[in-house]
Amino acid sequence: MGRDVANRRLRAGIVGGGKGSFIGAVHRVAAELDGQAQVVAGAMSTDPQRAEESAKAWFLDRSYASFEEMAEKEASRPDGIDFVIVATPNHMHYPVAKAFLQHGIHVVSDKPMSFSLEQAQEEVALVESKNLIFALTHNYTGYPMVRQARDLVRSGALGEIRKVIVEYIQDWLMEPQEQSGNKQAAWRTDPTKSGIAGCVGDIGTHGENLLEFITGQKIASLSADLSTFVPGRQLDDDANMLLRLENGAKGLLTCSQIAAGEENNLNIRVYGTRAGLEWHQMEPNTLLFKQPGQPTQIYRTNAPYTSEEARAAARTPGGHPEGFYEAFANIYRMAIADIRRVESGEKPLGGYPTVYDGLRGMLFITKAVESSQKGATWVDMKL
Amino acid sequence: MGRDVANRRLRAGIVGGGKGSFIGAVHRVAAELDGQAQVVAGAMSTDPQRAEESAKAWFLDRSYASFEEMAEKEASRPDGIDFVIVATPNHMHYPVAKAFLQHGIHVVSDKPMSFSLEQAQEEVALVESKNLIFALTHNYTGYPMVRQARDLVRSGALGEIRKVIVEYIQDWLMEPQEQSGNKQAAWRTDPTKSGIAGCVGDIGTHGENLLEFITGQKIASLSADLSTFVPGRQLDDDANMLLRLENGAKGLLTCSQIAAGEENNLNIRVYGTRAGLEWHQMEPNTLLFKQPGQPTQIYRTNAPYTSEEARAAARTPGGHPEGFYEAFANIYRMAIADIRRVESGEKPLGGYPTVYDGLRGMLFITKAVESSQKGATWVDMKL
Amino acid sequence: MGRDVANRRLRAGIVGGGKGSFIGAVHRVAAELDGQAQVVAGAMSTDPQRAEESAKAWFLDRSYASFEEMAEKEASRPDGIDFVIVATPNHMHYPVAKAFLQHGIHVVSDKPMSFSLEQAQEEVALVESKNLIFALTHNYTGYPMVRQARDLVRSGALGEIRKVIVEYIQDWLMEPQEQSGNKQAAWRTDPTKSGIAGCVGDIGTHGENLLEFITGQKIASLSADLSTFVPGRQLDDDANMLLRLENGAKGLLTCSQIAAGEENNLNIRVYGTRAGLEWHQMEPNTLLFKQPGQPTQIYRTNAPYTSEEARAAARTPGGHPEGFYEAFANIYRMAIADIRRVESGEKPLGGYPTVYDGLRGMLFITKAVESSQKGATWVDMKL
Amino acid sequence: MGRDVANRRLRAGIVGGGKGSFIGAVHRVAAELDGQAQVVAGAMSTDPQRAEESAKAWFLDRSYASFEEMAEKEASRPDGIDFVIVATPNHMHYPVAKAFLQHGIHVVSDKPMSFSLEQAQEEVALVESKNLIFALTHNYTGYPMVRQARDLVRSGALGEIRKVIVEYIQDWLMEPQEQSGNKQAAWRTDPTKSGIAGCVGDIGTHGENLLEFITGQKIASLSADLSTFVPGRQLDDDANMLLRLENGAKGLLTCSQIAAGEENNLNIRVYGTRAGLEWHQMEPNTLLFKQPGQPTQIYRTNAPYTSEEARAAARTPGGHPEGFYEAFANIYRMAIADIRRVESGEKPLGGYPTVYDGLRGMLFITKAVESSQKGATWVDMKL
Repeated sequence: MGRDVANRRLRAGIVGGGKGSFIGAVHRVAAELDGQAQVVAGAMSTDPQRAEESAKAWFLDRSYASFEEMAEKEASRPDGIDFVIVATPNHMHYPVAKAFLQHGIHVVSDKPMSFSLEQAQEEVALVESKNLIFALTHNYTGYPMVRQARDLVRSGALGEIRKVIVEYIQDWLMEPQEQSGNKQAAWRTDPTKSGIAGCVGDIGTHGENLLEFITGQKIASLSADLSTFVPGRQLDDDANMLLRLENGAKGLLTCSQIAAGEENNLNIRVYGTRAGLEWHQMEPNTLLFKQPGQPTQIYRTNAPYTSEEARAAARTPGGHPEGFYEAFANIYRMAIADIRRVESGEKPLGGYPTVYDGLRGMLFITKAVESSQKGATWVDMKL
Repeated sequence: MGRDVANRRLRAGIVGGGKGSFIGAVHRVAAELDGQAQVVAGAMSTDPQRAEESAKAWFLDRSYASFEEMAEKEASRPDGIDFVIVATPNHMHYPVAKAFLQHGIHVVSDKPMSFSLEQAQEEVALVESKNLIFALTHNYTGYPMVRQARDLVRSGALGEIRKVIVEYIQDWLMEPQEQSGNKQAAWRTDPTKSGIAGCVGDIGTHGENLLEFITGQKIASLSADLSTFVPGRQLDDDANMLLRLENGAKGLLTCSQIAAGEENNLNIRVYGTRAGLEWHQMEPNTLLFKQPGQPTQIYRTNAPYTSEEARAAARTPGGHPEGFYEAFANIYRMAIADIRRVESGEKPLGGYPTVYDGLRGMLFITKAVESSQKGATWVDMKL
Repeated sequence: MGRDVANRRLRAGIVGGGKGSFIGAVHRVAAELDGQAQVVAGAMSTDPQRAEESAKAWFLDRSYASFEEMAEKEASRPDGIDFVIVATPNHMHYPVAKAFLQHGIHVVSDKPMSFSLEQAQEEVALVESKNLIFALTHNYTGYPMVRQARDLVRSGALGEIRKVIVEYIQDWLMEPQEQSGNKQAAWRTDPTKSGIAGCVGDIGTHGENLLEFITGQKIASLSADLSTFVPGRQLDDDANMLLRLENGAKGLLTCSQIAAGEENNLNIRVYGTRAGLEWHQMEPNTLLFKQPGQPTQIYRTNAPYTSEEARAAARTPGGHPEGFYEAFANIYRMAIADIRRVESGEKPLGGYPTVYDGLRGMLFITKAVESSQKGATWVDMKL
Repeated sequence: MGRDVANRRLRAGIVGGGKGSFIGAVHRVAAELDGQAQVVAGAMSTDPQRAEESAKAWFLDRSYASFEEMAEKEASRPDGIDFVIVATPNHMHYPVAKAFLQHGIHVVSDKPMSFSLEQAQEEVALVESKNLIFALTHNYTGYPMVRQARDLVRSGALGEIRKVIVEYIQDWLMEPQEQSGNKQAAWRTDPTKSGIAGCVGDIGTHGENLLEFITGQKIASLSADLSTFVPGRQLDDDANMLLRLENGAKGLLTCSQIAAGEENNLNIRVYGTRAGLEWHQMEPNTLLFKQPGQPTQIYRTNAPYTSEEARAAARTPGGHPEGFYEAFANIYRMAIADIRRVESGEKPLGGYPTVYDGLRGMLFITKAVESSQKGATWVDMKL
């Protein structure tokens, strides 16, 4: 939209993500990995001292006490930031994004997109009214083998999809960590900060997004059984769901933060009339392509037989493992390329999760909770 | 009960399992593997010529045209069979077992135990009225690492069970095999031979049995979504279920015969308040024991640190893979030992699936179908 | 030649393999697995009481105090044994085999074939002079996926072989077990019973045999570095070797019984000008077929795309794991079929390891020891 | 030494690594990943246009036509680079490093350190004469699980090391790529650019370095069989070696660039008197710890039970896969921290491969070639 971004790294700001935050550092690394952007400003904490220290540790040029001030001042500087990274707890996602969007600054936001479904709908309208990029870090879609999986489905190699199994299971909340000073655990299990769902909002949405991304099918209805296993906890820490997809396929989705001994086990299997596929986030450079009556094939990141899009998402030759940062950075790579396009008057090309994915996610959270409250009965995934 | 079985191999007869049958040969190998029994008589097919040829191929001493004749004649011979193997399609399981039980002959039967829940209840009563061994070949419980899994749960190493995921997925019915001369596919998808369920009865019950075997918990209620994906098929070929266990644990069970590229993928994961475990039938000699904050441990068949019961189920030193036959043979080993005990006037010790497991299986089938017919709503697992 | 074996199980005898022996039971199970033979006689121990008890535990019809007596008496009975199983320590392999061969009885023998290279040469001459089957239980060649591997090489799918890596590593002798009453450890480490090599003779030969079986290439020369790590031990417990094959390919062979934490890790990788393959005995139903620039393919036991010979070596549908016993039984299956052929005046078809493989094995042992004694220098694999 | 580096990212320059180079981009990402440095200057190609374009693509402030000019000019600027990255073909490693060292600029260099053993010795002397950091990117030592492996050895958990197997096998040179325009293949197989070894110099040295890093033992002697399988090639493309370590342990090292179907398969196994370990670069976040008579334990990156040093090398919570870039970045992280220390007058702490590792690598290359030329006989690893 008129900024000259052609011969320089983009300038980014960050809200949240201060010292002790896991995701803040992930955003910085991912945003900067390709040498296409640099974080130069931040409002990294609501605690002024922590904000200052965090900014200093990252050698930021400018540190702000509030995101409102940052939005206003950066928007008015000739060398102000081109985009903002939203790395706060959930309840602040929308207010922060809104402030920067209203000041004409592009946004890359953590998921879930907002605190409530209503906010999400508002956010869609706001983004639609601006010529700005909004990218949502459903980062797992950034893995080359996830792109490959989608391309296999799109190519018809799987035939019509019949069955999907998606899991996202962890154990980090199997004890009441929120009662013993774990900051992330505290807000994740606090309905005033996380929203109506715990585990379902934090990781269940990743499962939902991955499923719809790979299969190209939307979830039509679901029957969800949410549980809270840890005494005293206010939000769900486990959920099992039956799914029915638009095309008649059936599915299962499970997410858990009390699955003892599981680290970050996100995985998906898709079965169609012709073939199946299987992918595990913890060994992300491998994708199994399963054909009945044929040897299962092991697809590998950046192999010559993979699709153009999958190869575009890889940075190293086969056998040099790519991981979480690189997948996350792919969201940024595509969003940054689109920011450059928009600023040059070109049309954005997309490829990363957007405000519409964010809306699906909030709808999923809302309906899963509704289903569970009604006794794990079927509800439609409709607004 | 008076037969002198002390210094000889037991004599077995078989009903069904003739030429072309997969499971017939499995029963023979499993029954004979430890050198404790030998199949000497059979009514191996309803087709007399096939019966004759099948018996000859196995060098059987005696071949019968019907199981009724076999039961009667064998019961009256001094060198008659000690036990019978029931390896027919489902609808004949009970009639055959009944005939031999009534002639005082022990029974080892294929699962599901009967054609209907009513038959199963009758069968329980019949077995209870006799001093005879009845073993049901839920063979997967015969694997050493499944025994180890149960022992870990029993020992309290997992704490209180919170979550269970059990899967049994295959692809052999993803095309309408029943229409192209595949004999097994034909009866498996025929409600007059299989009963009210297809996939759920054939393999879903193995999942249910394995879950209850390992966790020691009963399924209290379920919500089951059965599907028939292959056009023209009369029974389900896929099912997804939400489970609630008696102790408050939650679970998922999925079974499928249309999951493209899957061979015989039975697997289970159990998560408790202290630890989790994971086992895959296709690599059966490995069991993962997952402790939060500790390295996952790889338990291996017949390792010195495994439980006494798990070691008793193994035959070879660690690293010499044991497989499907050996697990199946463990059911026979325990049943044969009990036949020897009963014949010597001792009390049987059990350890193998019995008529009560068979009843649970038939209840599971009945309730899963009922739930699905009601729109995948919750039903209790009660008689 | 001339026995009527058409309509009955063959009768087998066993020498060695008494109580406490691992391999004795393996032979019995493997010989009987297909219902084509039954062990009926034995000279199972040099200790008369143990011999008697062992025979009784197996319900054998006849127990002998010595193998010489057994050979003589069985040869003269109308219902005498058709073949003998040699399951003794190494130093007795040849004397026992010789006695039965001279009485016109077929032989299935443990490896290594004999105590010395000279004996092996004598044994070749003896077998060549008789119209009798001699099978050597290099059992690992019995695995379906090993057969598949050989077929892939034979078909040219790998192109010209360039590189081979074969490993057989265990840990069961990492402590001086032979000093604490472990019977098998005692004779395995005793040069008067095992011969000139320990680990190389026990498991190194399996590696050599597997390599030559799969590649169809002979080892032309080797440079072997044998070690004895456990103090007080008289024979090698570890060896590393460089290999050069007849066609110019290069190779590595390592075997060890002191590799901490390894169970029975036999594996092989073969690389040619077109493709490579990889097989692990501990997960024997999987074979990796590796093509440059193509997805690696996972071949599975009894899959429809596997070779006729590989499928003939399988007994169960895909996904029903086959293991050590079944592979071992495949050696027996082929040997027994050949005994039937020979007795019916037909030509034997082979397929199992023979006296010539036994000679190669003894040559390998001899040359590996020679190379090591000369300082791990190159020696030719020539008689 | 005297630069004020406290409150800013360090400034880096790069020699080589221009467009089309794989390793150039790796260095940039790795150097910048932690936000502790930024590449600002470069002499990225000997071709001036390519140099210019490469610098522009990275938004570098300054692009030079030659490394000599760059060294001189940067050394005299107040905002000159703090360290240089050497990412050229092997023959330029030493000349470039020398130029910058002589201008008082710290160096991070690709391996092998130099073109010849003589150069390496000179380089050691040069570095010893300066108070400058010299880091060599034996990047695989940067993986958290490699650090964990070393810590397990150091802690005595493995006991005395007895056996080591290290492999580094690829297939990218199995065809004569150097004849079809592949730039990297061209110089890698050109003795005027690579030095006396091909595969051994490129990847064999990584194996040697990894082995010595983890075990803490030096290779005392070796017997190496180098091969050139691809017709017309001037350097080795495959090697097999027997090793003897200083403490009496035995080992195997194999490296290959013609192993069909292998991507970048670097792996190591170490066996001691108490336990063993196994690590595979292609699944780098897992380390197997193997204790005899105990379940094998799966160590995972950043798990709480891992060593302090291993955790320090990780950036994300368990289950968020870290890969090649992050391991590479760990070398930079430690080197950059040492540059900051040296510039502040503190003593460097090390932790990364240095000029002494470079010398070992060149000695290894030299001795492997010597051994092979003498017919794969034993030579000592002595200067």
